[in-house]
Amino acid sequence: MSGQSQGKFIVVEGIEGAGKSSAIEVIENFLTAQQISYEKTREPGGTPLAEKLRTLVKEPSEEQITPQCELLLMYASRSQLVANKILPALNQGKWVVGDRHDLSSRAYQGGGREFSDSVIDTIANITLNGFKPDFTLYLDIEPELGLSRAQARGELDRIEQEKIDFFHRVRNKYLQLATSDDSIFIVDASQTMEKVHSDITELLSKHFGS
Amino acid sequence: MSGQSQGKFIVVEGIEGAGKSSAIEVIENFLTAQQISYEKTREPGGTPLAEKLRTLVKEPSEEQITPQCELLLMYASRSQLVANKILPALNQGKWVVGDRHDLSSRAYQGGGREFSDSVIDTIANITLNGFKPDFTLYLDIEPELGLSRAQARGELDRIEQEKIDFFHRVRNKYLQLATSDDSIFIVDASQTMEKVHSDITELLSKHFGS
Repeated sequence: MSGQSQGKFIVVEGIEGAGKSSAIEVIENFLTAQQISYEKTREPGGTPLAEKLRTLVKEPSEEQITPQCELLLMYASRSQLVANKILPALNQGKWVVGDRHDLSSRAYQGGGREFSDSVIDTIANITLNGFKPDFTLYLDIEPELGLSRAQARGELDRIEQEKIDFFHRVRNKYLQLATSDDSIFIVDASQTMEKVHSDITELLSKHFGS
Repeated sequence: MSGQSQGKFIVVEGIEGAGKSSAIEVIENFLTAQQISYEKTREPGGTPLAEKLRTLVKEPSEEQITPQCELLLMYASRSQLVANKILPALNQGKWVVGDRHDLSSRAYQGGGREFSDSVIDTIANITLNGFKPDFTLYLDIEPELGLSRAQARGELDRIEQEKIDFFHRVRNKYLQLATSDDSIFIVDASQTMEKVHSDITELLSKHFGS
């Protein structure tokens, strides 16, 4: 407000085991070095109500969750997060670092669950009203490699328990969308962690370096 | 299954204070007299997950709920209810008596919150895939009269706390939809309770009497 510049919204995307958490740390280190004030979010979740929806949609439960319910809960959660956390932070001049955003719904519910682009566009349009990240890092990895990393970390959640074909559809959709939007940058997440991190820092410096 | 006839889905609709609960009792008495086995549902709600969504969407909370989140949670709940409760009951030959269904979203989120028909159609189509009630009773009442009845009963929930203009838009949408769908029957709910109940019984006898 009062002439203060608007913050930027940076999102990290990718399938399980692609290395999103450590990529977010790299971004945090970069922002801290630049003395940029930021907030972190995650999706689904990020507000008290959205976190309750996260629990409902991710925890294995005795009641079968329909693909439609899953899709609608993702956007219900996103609506709360954007209105009550992301936009207020950006308007205060803070940057926001998001662990997943709209691209995840397009990859998982669009690619994975095979909802059509037009259905997702309609729901995304009413939920986001044109709002989108300034910069998205998509960490690309073969599903077999990503899932073996994720499995090594511990138990998989309800969505992570899907079959490998599901994750191939998710990855294909990620790649298709990433190559058609010049605010999305693909990082090869099958490289060594050091190389992945230096690729991320290089991209950030190129776009946001002072 | 095995030649057993499919049950029927009867829904009661109307604004707060229209008399839905006592109308449902009239329907239950009718079905019992006809020796028809039935289940009751309510929306939002009706399954364990859907009831959790009901609590989130109806209880006043410190976090402002966006109109988009409200709309999406109503359909998320409806998806669970149809898949996990209504369709299984109908397929077993049971009838289902619903306290609200899709018409409520069209009246409250469409009429009241002013979401467009095309947005609601898109979400309803993926959620319901053409499924609709066999018979809907819409209890029509002036919002001023309905709300004064509801207020006399006790505290109003988050949606019931809307301003009177909201309920006029809801009622107008109900009337518009009821007059363009021949499976929806309008009952004048401003009449005496005895007359309302005899009107309902007459409609049921005409359609489902043996």
